[in-house]
Amino acid sequence: MIRIYGDGNSGNCLKVKWVCDALALPTTWIDVDTTTGGSRTVEFLKLNPWGQVPTVEFDDGRTLAQSNAIIRYLARGSDLIPADPFAAAQMDAWLFWSNTAMSPMWPCAAFRWSISASPPASSTRILVKRGYAALDSMERRLSEARFLVGDVFSLADVALLAYTRVAHEGGFDLTSYASLRRWIAEAEKRLGLPAAR
Amino acid sequence: MIRIYGDGNSGNCLKVKWVCDALALPTTWIDVDTTTGGSRTVEFLKLNPWGQVPTVEFDDGRTLAQSNAIIRYLARGSDLIPADPFAAAQMDAWLFWSNTAMSPMWPCAAFRWSISASPPASSTRILVKRGYAALDSMERRLSEARFLVGDVFSLADVALLAYTRVAHEGGFDLTSYASLRRWIAEAEKRLGLPAAR
Repeated sequence: MIRIYGDGNSGNCLKVKWVCDALALPTTWIDVDTTTGGSRTVEFLKLNPWGQVPTVEFDDGRTLAQSNAIIRYLARGSDLIPADPFAAAQMDAWLFWSNTAMSPMWPCAAFRWSISASPPASSTRILVKRGYAALDSMERRLSEARFLVGDVFSLADVALLAYTRVAHEGGFDLTSYASLRRWIAEAEKRLGLPAAR
Repeated sequence: MIRIYGDGNSGNCLKVKWVCDALALPTTWIDVDTTTGGSRTVEFLKLNPWGQVPTVEFDDGRTLAQSNAIIRYLARGSDLIPADPFAAAQMDAWLFWSNTAMSPMWPCAAFRWSISASPPASSTRILVKRGYAALDSMERRLSEARFLVGDVFSLADVALLAYTRVAHEGGFDLTSYASLRRWIAEAEKRLGLPAAR
């Protein structure tokens, strides 16, 4: 049994659950409310000194942090990681890229949820611009390939899906992103997720 | 021959060179001046649509982006990646963590270089605080282990070294970080680098 310490509003946490489900790995989800310091308690910092969710704990007590490191470990040897080393490296490139490129998605969504009546602050406008640039990159790639790493559905698709499927909640309009919307629908179907909108 | 498109001031670029040198892989370094748009030219975007350095190009014309994906690919099968899958996952956790946690290092250094006479803006003060928090995490780990992943010198050490060895240039004072300084010296020695200060 894998214990997933996570926040249900976080795409980074959800993607760990999705990978476990896709690999039929049994899990227990432990909700951690990061907004009230749940990831900074003495108990939690023993699981993950960085104080971040998701964190997973295995039956033998070992723990692992960082969503992309977790899914890469859990999916080793499965068809979610391309067997070809260069294709796997391209998958890794998307994972590392998403770490920074997708970061605007979350604050933008948080902004919309919290103060949607106010006009965006300049810092939010910069995030919106960066967010659309990231979506542009994905659209360009997905207009020429079925998945991010060619024909193979991989962890790159799982990781990026976590943000893009809820991009509209952060105010991002995907109307003109035809390839991205096609890919979101296909990735959701692969993972057995309901359509996000 | 591996062509490394990089900026010599960027730790992300230098670490690719260090890994190639450690593995005795022949390289050619092509300087890209990102401050004057060198990574956004039509020619460069054909190599890397994300417009980022480092980017590597192999003899067969294939290209790969994202420094951590690059070093992970180049070092596959070498002793820079732990053979034990869980230890490799811990290495990955440090790599993904560094992607965001180490980001304050670069802007802080840039700030110091460009307008060192002015007091830090509030955004810079936040970066400084986050930078020290990252250094605290590393100090804690390195006070209990020789390297970031236990006894094994790995890509985690190479990647984190790139930022920490020049942290003083960004105004970070490492005087009280005894374990971190011990580790920097050892990692520099492993890679055959001169002491950064």
